[in-house]
Amino acid sequence: MNKILRVNMTELSIKEEPVKEEYKLLGGRAFIAKLLLDEVKPTCEPLGKHNKLIFAPGLLGGSKVLSSGRISIGGKSPLTGGVKESNGGGVVGIKLGRLRYKGIVVEGLPSSERKYLLKVDANGAALLEAEQYWGLGVYETARKLREKYGSNVAVSCIGPAGENKFLAAGIANTDIDGVPSRYSGRGGLGALMGSKGLKAIVLDDKGLGVLEAADVREFNQAMQDYSKILKESPVVEAYNIYGTAAMVQVTNAVGGLPTRNFSTGKFEWAEKISGERMHDIISERKGKTTHACMPGCMIRCSNVYVDESGKDIVAPLEYETIALMGSNLNIDDLDVIAKLNYLCNDYGLDTIETGAALGVAMAGGLIPFGDQEGALNLVHEIGKGTLQGRVLGMGAETAGKVLGVLNLPVVKGQAMPGYEPRGIKGMGVTYATSPMGADHTAGATARAKVDHNSREGQADLSKKMQYTIPIYDDLGLCMFAVVALGPYPEVLSRLVNSQLGTQLSAEDLFKLADQTVKWEREFNRRAGFTNLDDRLPEYFNETPNPAINSVFDVGEEELDKIHE
Amino acid sequence: MNKILRVNMTELSIKEEPVKEEYKLLGGRAFIAKLLLDEVKPTCEPLGKHNKLIFAPGLLGGSKVLSSGRISIGGKSPLTGGVKESNGGGVVGIKLGRLRYKGIVVEGLPSSERKYLLKVDANGAALLEAEQYWGLGVYETARKLREKYGSNVAVSCIGPAGENKFLAAGIANTDIDGVPSRYSGRGGLGALMGSKGLKAIVLDDKGLGVLEAADVREFNQAMQDYSKILKESPVVEAYNIYGTAAMVQVTNAVGGLPTRNFSTGKFEWAEKISGERMHDIISERKGKTTHACMPGCMIRCSNVYVDESGKDIVAPLEYETIALMGSNLNIDDLDVIAKLNYLCNDYGLDTIETGAALGVAMAGGLIPFGDQEGALNLVHEIGKGTLQGRVLGMGAETAGKVLGVLNLPVVKGQAMPGYEPRGIKGMGVTYATSPMGADHTAGATARAKVDHNSREGQADLSKKMQYTIPIYDDLGLCMFAVVALGPYPEVLSRLVNSQLGTQLSAEDLFKLADQTVKWEREFNRRAGFTNLDDRLPEYFNETPNPAINSVFDVGEEELDKIHE
Repeated sequence: MNKILRVNMTELSIKEEPVKEEYKLLGGRAFIAKLLLDEVKPTCEPLGKHNKLIFAPGLLGGSKVLSSGRISIGGKSPLTGGVKESNGGGVVGIKLGRLRYKGIVVEGLPSSERKYLLKVDANGAALLEAEQYWGLGVYETARKLREKYGSNVAVSCIGPAGENKFLAAGIANTDIDGVPSRYSGRGGLGALMGSKGLKAIVLDDKGLGVLEAADVREFNQAMQDYSKILKESPVVEAYNIYGTAAMVQVTNAVGGLPTRNFSTGKFEWAEKISGERMHDIISERKGKTTHACMPGCMIRCSNVYVDESGKDIVAPLEYETIALMGSNLNIDDLDVIAKLNYLCNDYGLDTIETGAALGVAMAGGLIPFGDQEGALNLVHEIGKGTLQGRVLGMGAETAGKVLGVLNLPVVKGQAMPGYEPRGIKGMGVTYATSPMGADHTAGATARAKVDHNSREGQADLSKKMQYTIPIYDDLGLCMFAVVALGPYPEVLSRLVNSQLGTQLSAEDLFKLADQTVKWEREFNRRAGFTNLDDRLPEYFNETPNPAINSVFDVGEEELDKIHE
Repeated sequence: MNKILRVNMTELSIKEEPVKEEYKLLGGRAFIAKLLLDEVKPTCEPLGKHNKLIFAPGLLGGSKVLSSGRISIGGKSPLTGGVKESNGGGVVGIKLGRLRYKGIVVEGLPSSERKYLLKVDANGAALLEAEQYWGLGVYETARKLREKYGSNVAVSCIGPAGENKFLAAGIANTDIDGVPSRYSGRGGLGALMGSKGLKAIVLDDKGLGVLEAADVREFNQAMQDYSKILKESPVVEAYNIYGTAAMVQVTNAVGGLPTRNFSTGKFEWAEKISGERMHDIISERKGKTTHACMPGCMIRCSNVYVDESGKDIVAPLEYETIALMGSNLNIDDLDVIAKLNYLCNDYGLDTIETGAALGVAMAGGLIPFGDQEGALNLVHEIGKGTLQGRVLGMGAETAGKVLGVLNLPVVKGQAMPGYEPRGIKGMGVTYATSPMGADHTAGATARAKVDHNSREGQADLSKKMQYTIPIYDDLGLCMFAVVALGPYPEVLSRLVNSQLGTQLSAEDLFKLADQTVKWEREFNRRAGFTNLDDRLPEYFNETPNPAINSVFDVGEEELDKIHE
């Protein structure tokens, strides 16, 4: 991964450049943070000509390391106005690594109405006309692109939501089966891609093998240890059986399952949307209860949710979607949630942001809570781009402003994922203080064995996670491995060193994580953010979550200490 | 003015309290700034329970000083999220002064759906049920209130826009004829009043006379000098003849008349919407070309615009409205602009914010530029509170976000008034750096005899105005007197001293102005604003105004020096 691909959409030009020395040890999220800080004016209009859209595999992308193929996509977020890295599974990161690219940087705005796709293979890269794909959903887009360019290609693409520059739009990445359901969903990066007039990136690694390790023997030993740790982890096992949806009963039990626009943390019908129930339904209907999104993944959190006739509805159905489009909407039917999920995927929408916007729409009286048909209809409105659809497609904050809803589950313009922050207070700390806006992956605390209702220790816990997870995001590893691998950071440095020929200590990886967050915070500071943006909305501080009779009571001084 | 009226909408309680020592020399805008800083949490939700709505006459309010009856209304702005003082003409400030109130402070949120009005007279104050007025336009509201409480009362009230908490909603104040067309329009204060469940304030000063001067002889002498200066001013004379609309040809000549969503600064049909044309039309139709909004006003900038049959359409028709709803919408017909103005007034909307939102709607393709019927219809949609109406009623920034328009004439969330900032660069400096958001009254430079297209000296000019105008806003004087009185500040201190028995120098008045802006800036700082908020949108810095082929090129360092 010794080169960077620069794609200029104004000049329709492409050039390759060598990786600068200071970028050599940066991958994924770290690469994005540094590049944004170096090259993008922090105060720029996110959908204007100065912003850049970046695709970057992790440092281990394209290697033999299992579960190391995450793709980081980033830019200045059209949703938050701050730094954004949103990573997804599937095979895009793997292919990009094998194509030897540390990153693709898409720059400039198109000077005409023409639409393009970027095709990259062993012979180089080209911008090709893509008028015929514009307007298509992501499933048909990926299908047609794989028909044309071969079933081996990986695709990142947007749907109509991204084309319309909706701030809830994400970027879909194809998985091992060629299905574009691995979303870099957060932060409106689909809108950024749409603003560039870029429908898709097609990656073909034909003729290029896996990236060989610098020290094969040591690499193989490190890999053995790595696999053993993952294999023996009970958390990984749970992901295998129930996927992320195992979380439903866990969060509900502690009053942390977002329900009816985050007005409470307990859902009366949680069992009906639980991972256990999902597992039973999928088993009965002969779907797939477990599934890998990338080759050789041992975590296999994915699934294929099918209807009564055994036909696929969506793959995968995950916890965040179940929380945001289930309990948060007072919807207790997994079939409906799966359909909502499919529609969002196809239109190119982040299910978290869209679910939160629908919750706000219900709180604002546009449709009643629990209105299943109404919710499906509103997602279609977004897909069609009607005025109503535009209001919701711009995300929960804009929907709330238009509909006059004050209690918004939003930080830095981005909607909260599936953890009610008064019930799971460490997540509240992460929502408030992450440079990404309300985000769960930036500092996930929900699996820690602590009293989630108590404020004690939550700031420290969130801080620890916020400064650990960037290691995974920098390397391209799945963050679901963090619980298993957390106690063994030297396994990660051994993998990196044997793969890349570096001499990094585990400590060095933590330093890289630390540096990553510092770059991100600095970008945000230059974009105008202050500590006052590191807060939850007034509502969560002042109105108790009735399930546990507690407000979010982690003090402002504690929040401010996170990044000191 | 030795007392403050506290009105608590949660408890439906009212109490009077003496003015604290440190507030004694503060009036109008200064009073609001200090009170917000002392009592309102700067990060609070503006439409939540912590915000306060403040009505304050100037230090000379209720005195015999001519043109001293402006009413300052303030709070944390629901539109900008920062400090807000919005002042209006009419007789509300005069009555409040005569009732001896330095201010009315409305606190808390209602705990029921019931609606109220606040009645204040010589015997005290009371909250009265106002269900029967809720939903009415401001004209009918004022008419009915005057019917019920006597034609002598002054009224401040909101229309449906404020009731719906639309961020483009203002507060209407009655004038000398009892017509509620003197708007405290900016910053969404109508929404703040609506959030309090307060439809109107009714002030009856029966039995209370003018506030007598402490030193009658000196006061009379100062008043003579004051009147003479105003009488001899050619600027005041121009206001008499053409009203503020005289500005149309002036700004158009320098490429500073906002046209078609601020895309250029010259309007091909400027003559058709000019003050001169307006004067001719009103004369022909036997309307009133000049008119006073408060008793004894010598400036008389107001008018009564009538239709062909001589029937009132709106009074007054002013420059800002003509710019924002005329050239900015590509509408060249004063009759249509007057009708738009009337509708906005009646629904309780700021014509600047609404005009800018309509311009954005046209840029976003909702209706074409120049569509007169479409524009009238959209204002009705806002009044009716449809989804389309909500999108526009929340102001230009929200409309732009929903409609995907990037080139927004907005600073700190508030729409720009009638001066294209690349053409009239001093106004651009004021828009960028005023604590109020894009605002013309905070530092009006358009009448200065400078090359408005040149960046030279504009920062100094804006600074001078931004630190002079608060004197007028603190005293309750009409800022249209500033050009005439500017060279004679000691006349103002003589008026204040002889009226109040104080010993202030002209210098002290400038210190008060300075302090006022510092308090406002400090409130904003604590609300999360930084110097990076003191900028125009990227569009104005990078895309030339084609009328003069110039971008807004006053440097960021110059902007940052304004408040150093």
